[in-house]
Amino acid sequence: SAVSSPIRATLFPGDGIGPEIADSVKQIFEAAEVPIEWEEHYVGTEIDPRTQSFLTWESLESVRRNGVGLKGPMATPIGKGHRSLNLTLRKELNLYANVRPCYSLPGYKTRYDNVNLITIRENTEGEYSGLEHQVVRGVVESLKIITRQASLRVAEYAFHYAKSHGRERVSAIHKANIMQKTDGLFLKCCREVAEKYPEITYEEVVIDNCCMMLVKNPALFDVLVMPNLYGDIISDLCAGLVGGLGLTPSCNIGEGGIALAEAVHGSAPDIAGKNLANPTALLLSGVTMLRHLNFHDKADQIQNAILQTIAEGKHRTADLGGSSKTTEFTKAIIDHL
Amino acid sequence: SAVSSPIRATLFPGDGIGPEIADSVKQIFEAAEVPIEWEEHYVGTEIDPRTQSFLTWESLESVRRNGVGLKGPMATPIGKGHRSLNLTLRKELNLYANVRPCYSLPGYKTRYDNVNLITIRENTEGEYSGLEHQVVRGVVESLKIITRQASLRVAEYAFHYAKSHGRERVSAIHKANIMQKTDGLFLKCCREVAEKYPEITYEEVVIDNCCMMLVKNPALFDVLVMPNLYGDIISDLCAGLVGGLGLTPSCNIGEGGIALAEAVHGSAPDIAGKNLANPTALLLSGVTMLRHLNFHDKADQIQNAILQTIAEGKHRTADLGGSSKTTEFTKAIIDHL
Ligand SMILES: CC(C)[C@H](C(=O)O)[C@@H](O)C(=O)O
Ligand SMILES: CC(C)[C@H](C(=O)O)[C@@H](O)C(=O)O
Repeated sequence: SAVSSPIRATLFPGDGIGPEIADSVKQIFEAAEVPIEWEEHYVGTEIDPRTQSFLTWESLESVRRNGVGLKGPMATPIGKGHRSLNLTLRKELNLYANVRPCYSLPGYKTRYDNVNLITIRENTEGEYSGLEHQVVRGVVESLKIITRQASLRVAEYAFHYAKSHGRERVSAIHKANIMQKTDGLFLKCCREVAEKYPEITYEEVVIDNCCMMLVKNPALFDVLVMPNLYGDIISDLCAGLVGGLGLTPSCNIGEGGIALAEAVHGSAPDIAGKNLANPTALLLSGVTMLRHLNFHDKADQIQNAILQTIAEGKHRTADLGGSSKTTEFTKAIIDHL
Repeated sequence: SAVSSPIRATLFPGDGIGPEIADSVKQIFEAAEVPIEWEEHYVGTEIDPRTQSFLTWESLESVRRNGVGLKGPMATPIGKGHRSLNLTLRKELNLYANVRPCYSLPGYKTRYDNVNLITIRENTEGEYSGLEHQVVRGVVESLKIITRQASLRVAEYAFHYAKSHGRERVSAIHKANIMQKTDGLFLKCCREVAEKYPEITYEEVVIDNCCMMLVKNPALFDVLVMPNLYGDIISDLCAGLVGGLGLTPSCNIGEGGIALAEAVHGSAPDIAGKNLANPTALLLSGVTMLRHLNFHDKADQIQNAILQTIAEGKHRTADLGGSSKTTEFTKAIIDHL
């Protein structure tokens, strides 16, 4: 491949185990000669009035400028008067779709074999509107908002993703039998987009039934697209099928082609700084970032090295039943590159 | 046990396979000499203006009068201008708690062993408020309502259930990190009730994490209590762990001690009238009704006969991989009484 000047990408190492697993990513990407130059940004120690959170405006500007970023876990500090870091990122960068590939890792046994699902979650509205109030004492309400614009946008993304990744089916997950107007609008938008993709099978599945079918037979599904809260629930359920959030990548897509990949697991403060963390979710998220940049060779190379290392089983971190340190696991992956 | 005059209970055979599985219940209950006299009610053919649905007012009066009932599947006829039959029952009878025991059936293998969970769902409010409207073209909203009254009521029921059934732990499932006011109120009510039950361990689990943990290790949970929509989702997920809605009982508890047990699976019109349906969910729901009436001996006797018949595996209906007719399975259960 041609020599070209490196791409700048924002890196948020995050809190807790974040810096250690971010180090793992940096080392492996360097060893694989990925042409990426990281621009690191940290969670601030004071609330930035422009973001109303501990995320600085400069760090958001960095993602906007670079168009791509990778994010470790960020624990939102407890207290009042500021916004959740994750939600700030989604809102400020208009990260409208959250894509989580979820596949069985060869050699790492769970109750399920051959899981191969993609959940695509609307990431900006629904029950996450933040609009809540007390009606009278003892009666509170939250507003769930569904818009045509956001629904079309995520449906477009899902069908485009399905087509460009050789996937065959898109299932829209909903509860329109109860929420006829909101989830009904979401489905209407999915149907409109489905019309433009006759080669992709389109179906609609009620969320309760979807969860039952997922635990009985996940092979029934391929790409799933859904409103925000259902996506939150189902993406974690699917991650559980293959081992949990420590093993599954996630990538947020924003307007203008921004991609912010992230490990969605917690910051695990109990093991932070002890060289015990498993960097797999952040690594595989980095891989989705590479695919977004069309660096498919590098993405394949790194993904294969990760999967082979896990499959061999000689170097596994404690969460996978092994006794390797983060740095040993990282070195093993580099040896497999 | 002493001879006493029979209890009257309402029976809604329901649609599709409903009448066949209701016959199975009637035969088995009769063979077990359960002192129950059924008062059968059918879904009407015209909308009853007092219920705004195909359920007649008389049938609701029957449940109110008898205090107990058993309901087969009811398909809500398509069309406008009437309410869902299930929702009508919940609203009119104020069925505030939906209880679904979910346990592994000995001898019927799924990916999970020794599942033993109880989901308790708030059944009247939340996203099921029916309050939705278009704000402007392309923007719709649904109201999620949480009240102190309904939350306390279902929390009370859950803790009382846990205590009276020898259960050790109640987990309140929520998304209060996003819906601080609505789910926050729900949690506040659960905490208040938990104070009164120091012998029961109380914990709070975010719904996405709960779903991941349920598919990884359902033994982490015991009794789960939650708002309406989460209960809809999680109760189906849990049913999926042990084989699906065809095998799991459900019972709705209303004000004044009303209990309406129900099979929550569909009416399976494709196999209706063919003597192929599996009556297990309706039977086990009938068993929960017996327990509600404190007929524990009869409940144990019937439940054991059902479980033994399934465990032996000689007489299983097609959905469980067997070739028995509904009537053969029913007879086998009677032979085990
Ligand atoms: C931390 C929380 C606000 C967040 C969400 O609910 O979206 C998380 O569960 C996720 O899925 O990224
Ligand atoms: C049929 C539907 C309205 C109902 C619900 O959503 O409550 C069903 O899923 C259930 O769980 O009883």
